Amino acid sequence: MENIKIVGFGGSLRKESYNKYLLNEARDLMPENAELEILSIDNFPMFNQDLENDYPENVKNFKNRIKKSDGILISTPEYNYSIPGFLKNVIDLASRPYTDNAFEGKPVAIVSASIGMVGGARAQYHLRQVFTFLNMVPVNRPEVFVTFAQQKFDENGKLKDEMTKKLMKELLQNLVNLSIQLKK
Amino acid sequence: MENIKIVGFGGSLRKESYNKYLLNEARDLMPENAELEILSIDNFPMFNQDLENDYPENVKNFKNRIKKSDGILISTPEYNYSIPGFLKNVIDLASRPYTDNAFEGKPVAIVSASIGMVGGARAQYHLRQVFTFLNMVPVNRPEVFVTFAQQKFDENGKLKDEMTKKLMKELLQNLVNLSIQLKK
Amino acid sequence: MENIKIVGFGGSLRKESYNKYLLNEARDLMPENAELEILSIDNFPMFNQDLENDYPENVKNFKNRIKKSDGILISTPEYNYSIPGFLKNVIDLASRPYTDNAFEGKPVAIVSASIGMVGGARAQYHLRQVFTFLNMVPVNRPEVFVTFAQQKFDENGKLKDEMTKKLMKELLQNLVNLSIQLKK
Amino acid sequence: MENIKIVGFGGSLRKESYNKYLLNEARDLMPENAELEILSIDNFPMFNQDLENDYPENVKNFKNRIKKSDGILISTPEYNYSIPGFLKNVIDLASRPYTDNAFEGKPVAIVSASIGMVGGARAQYHLRQVFTFLNMVPVNRPEVFVTFAQQKFDENGKLKDEMTKKLMKELLQNLVNLSIQLKK
Repeated sequence: MENIKIVGFGGSLRKESYNKYLLNEARDLMPENAELEILSIDNFPMFNQDLENDYPENVKNFKNRIKKSDGILISTPEYNYSIPGFLKNVIDLASRPYTDNAFEGKPVAIVSASIGMVGGARAQYHLRQVFTFLNMVPVNRPEVFVTFAQQKFDENGKLKDEMTKKLMKELLQNLVNLSIQLKK
Repeated sequence: MENIKIVGFGGSLRKESYNKYLLNEARDLMPENAELEILSIDNFPMFNQDLENDYPENVKNFKNRIKKSDGILISTPEYNYSIPGFLKNVIDLASRPYTDNAFEGKPVAIVSASIGMVGGARAQYHLRQVFTFLNMVPVNRPEVFVTFAQQKFDENGKLKDEMTKKLMKELLQNLVNLSIQLKK
Repeated sequence: MENIKIVGFGGSLRKESYNKYLLNEARDLMPENAELEILSIDNFPMFNQDLENDYPENVKNFKNRIKKSDGILISTPEYNYSIPGFLKNVIDLASRPYTDNAFEGKPVAIVSASIGMVGGARAQYHLRQVFTFLNMVPVNRPEVFVTFAQQKFDENGKLKDEMTKKLMKELLQNLVNLSIQLKK
Repeated sequence: MENIKIVGFGGSLRKESYNKYLLNEARDLMPENAELEILSIDNFPMFNQDLENDYPENVKNFKNRIKKSDGILISTPEYNYSIPGFLKNVIDLASRPYTDNAFEGKPVAIVSASIGMVGGARAQYHLRQVFTFLNMVPVNRPEVFVTFAQQKFDENGKLKDEMTKKLMKELLQNLVNLSIQLKK
């Protein structure tokens, strides 16, 4: 059976980002018939419609990896009760021009971590509205909101909370199942 | 009577942006006892929490102008059914660090223009959720959604639609009234 | 080939409801291999968790029709920028108790009509968030927002706007296609 | 100094409702210069636009109490990631007809309790969007989301969690302050 290719992106731009740790963790928790490639989003320009047909190489490569994937994993912090600007900008870049939306029809799952008690839920629901426009197919369950993140990772950035691992595994399995279903 | 100082920002990064035109138009439509200063958001860096205490001069100046203002006007395009990444990034920058949120307690109004039939409404509601976190006080009415924008501006980027002008005037008057009320 | 069974509900409780007209219209616009049954939601009680295991016959029947369907069409007015209370109540009833959610896994499409310029979009996005919890699979495109509804129906409540008919047809075809895909 | 009159409504229709307990608790936690009257919403009809000029006595009384109040407190459960139908119906009733919106200009605060980990946040943000249409002035902070409610009330329905009490007190104080400010 063919391997399912999931690509992941997100985290924050800071070095010690819980949401980067989550992406790394996801790589270890993927089902056997699937692999996760983590895509860099560093040094991306701001989206500017005047330049949407002339992206730099790193954005072009990002779009190509998205297009060739079977499914997508996004790890999002929550800034000011919504999607972080830098992460929304990545999505804006890869979705344009309209006739070349890299996300078209792709299955997608979201994870988020925060040091507070809501765990990124507000950012996730804004992302889900974005997915409607992009014509993506989101996994509904389970929702992975890592609350009080500072208690759930060890000093090497490894997830130590077993419940969160279990939920992540279930989410990734559902993403892979959906990716297989939509490939047919 | 003292003059009310409103600062405005937004538009898109492209040259011919309907949302930039809206900001310019707002300057002409302000009530007599108020003025609108339009703030540049060009060449802002991506928000990175590791660097939030060490912003470049243009971001520092932006934050200062926001803090000294009596009220704020945001002109937002809608990208992918939400706030554009570059604009959310501006808000993320000026709201951090947490102990130095430039938007704290400020009255705010939103305008948006799009070439489609919904006119930016989805971006505006996401912004309103952001305002809750930032502890801003939004004007509720009228909502200004400029639909089919290509029909409502002339070739010099001047608004020619009288109904839109009327609504903009009412919105700006309400923003100024709210700013006066909150100054007391 | 087997017929696809779609069930529809919604409209408002008033007699001359544009959203009821839309449901009736949808019946005529269904693809050949599918049929639409419109379900009554009149005289439903308010949801009360103490009584969720003891519903009256009309609610039980409604839940059964939903469960036996291949897909769902909801026609929603927008009240106060969200889902009407009476319609949300119908969804609350049919989704409980938790272990007997009639909507589990069902494909769903939404249409809405209003006399204003936004056409129910705000109600539709709130519904989409509800679908996440209910584990439903919404059709993303096209979105059908019937604006200025008073101009688009004739005096017998028949849709006379050709563009709206075209969009409705496309939406219903996509709903039926999704229903076939999910049956496999 | 004049007493500030806050009216509260919400809870669920079941007997043992954490959100009813919250309303009762709020009565005890009000600042000295204010009082909270809890309004019944039992036996309200479904909103039907054909009948909006002919409400029964209990709805008329409810609207009158709202209109005469200085501010409003809503205690909302979360059903299916949004506002419960029965509660949205109460709001729909009291906001119509358009020319007689009982909520016009009123300050409002929200509390919510749930047995899960998100504590009603999703219902609260949908309510905030409703407030925009109704032209209400919501308190931004603190947000009171009572998570894992079964652990925070005693067997008599009294709140035993000190942190929640502290937050409730702060919220009610802010609601009263806003009510005083808007009365001027």
